[in-house]
Amino acid sequence: MGLGELGSPMAANLLDSGYDLTVYNRTPSKAEPLVKRGAQLASDPLEVAAKGGVVVSLLWDSDTTESVVTPEFLARMEGGVHVCMCTGSPEAAKRLARLHEEHGSAYVEAPIFGRPEAAKARQLAISYVGSQVAKDRVKPLLTAMGAHALFDMGEQPGIPTVLKQLGNFLIFSAASSLKEGLGIAESAGLDPTAAINMLTATLFPAPIYRDYGKAVAEKKHVDASPIPAKDLGLFRQLAVEHGQPNPITLMLLQLMSPSNQ
Amino acid sequence: MGLGELGSPMAANLLDSGYDLTVYNRTPSKAEPLVKRGAQLASDPLEVAAKGGVVVSLLWDSDTTESVVTPEFLARMEGGVHVCMCTGSPEAAKRLARLHEEHGSAYVEAPIFGRPEAAKARQLAISYVGSQVAKDRVKPLLTAMGAHALFDMGEQPGIPTVLKQLGNFLIFSAASSLKEGLGIAESAGLDPTAAINMLTATLFPAPIYRDYGKAVAEKKHVDASPIPAKDLGLFRQLAVEHGQPNPITLMLLQLMSPSNQ
Repeated sequence: MGLGELGSPMAANLLDSGYDLTVYNRTPSKAEPLVKRGAQLASDPLEVAAKGGVVVSLLWDSDTTESVVTPEFLARMEGGVHVCMCTGSPEAAKRLARLHEEHGSAYVEAPIFGRPEAAKARQLAISYVGSQVAKDRVKPLLTAMGAHALFDMGEQPGIPTVLKQLGNFLIFSAASSLKEGLGIAESAGLDPTAAINMLTATLFPAPIYRDYGKAVAEKKHVDASPIPAKDLGLFRQLAVEHGQPNPITLMLLQLMSPSNQ
Repeated sequence: MGLGELGSPMAANLLDSGYDLTVYNRTPSKAEPLVKRGAQLASDPLEVAAKGGVVVSLLWDSDTTESVVTPEFLARMEGGVHVCMCTGSPEAAKRLARLHEEHGSAYVEAPIFGRPEAAKARQLAISYVGSQVAKDRVKPLLTAMGAHALFDMGEQPGIPTVLKQLGNFLIFSAASSLKEGLGIAESAGLDPTAAINMLTATLFPAPIYRDYGKAVAEKKHVDASPIPAKDLGLFRQLAVEHGQPNPITLMLLQLMSPSNQ
């Protein structure tokens, strides 16, 4: 369920690995390439749930995920496993885990680090929690979907979601700082490409600095996606809920607001 | 000249590599370990300048460096090379380069990336500019002082200083974001050490994330140094001079102010 920029290549990877697959997407046209490659098309979320089966969801957020996990959905997937890969809230992850447990199914929380290109290249990083039995069952599926690095974080729901939000916050912080910093440095005469080459060969040998730094240096247009603001809003909410200082989070949110683009 | 936390191990490296060395420091006691290992002690900056010799300075900032480069100093070091390694302003670097050229000596601007431990381990990164002749002459000295990676940025003064300020800004931004982010994530139940291990194995395989992340995760006290605020202030000044937006720089400066520690 959920054939967006990440879900589509991950579903294609599953087909390539020989798995039987039923796909659902709110806008069904996005499923066409997968149906051509052998996937069954479901016209309703309920149709992907089967007794003892595995459901993988990658929907917009926790609310959209919870709206799908209805009593009927839960009844249909008894004995099965729901692998939820969206970036939502840790509280919703706890609710969903409890709900599945109460209805005789398992919930594996497995948010993804990686862009669509990384999904295609099977280079995703996935941290996950769930019962040991459920994790053992879905581990080969996570690899088949494109996970290059898998991090078993135990059984406590909410943990991978917090980690995902933290990682996103650090990515947005690095990206915004690269934009601001390279702008200042270039105005003072520094060639931004030479700067990125030097910095990523020494202090910052990390993909985000290399890829985003190169895009900023070359003034490439980066499509404005609504996802960063959504994810960062979740992290800010977490900070507020726990009374933690969050001045950088707040500033990054302000920089992402449409009036600042 | 300048035997601080970085200058001292770099001077020791030079002695270890067999170079003759005269050292100067405003507080002479800091020179004692080097004198015991064979360095000559100068009681005045003028005493380190010799016709055709190489002077290496690593003073607090551009102002302290310019205060040393007096007409008498310039006259004494005719035919020589001044390797200036401080983090100053690009405008001062241009003035100093011009001044040396006018007095028959050369100026090599070579600010350093690396902490004292990296100096001891000869793992510094140094970007530098100057005339080709001067660079060829001092290159072996930079290596002997502890440079692991050398980046020849051409001949235009000011460029390595802007690069150094940009790199520092990105370091401070990453460090402050790690502190804020790990604080929020830990309050929401995530083990900060597990988080740093996962993030540096995937998205952020960079020394600053590994080392500073570990220090924050383990609640290690990091000595408050006045250097970050000084360096970040220079970057902010650069932004203002060139009319560039700098909201993150300004926020980091505010977070560094004593009232926020």
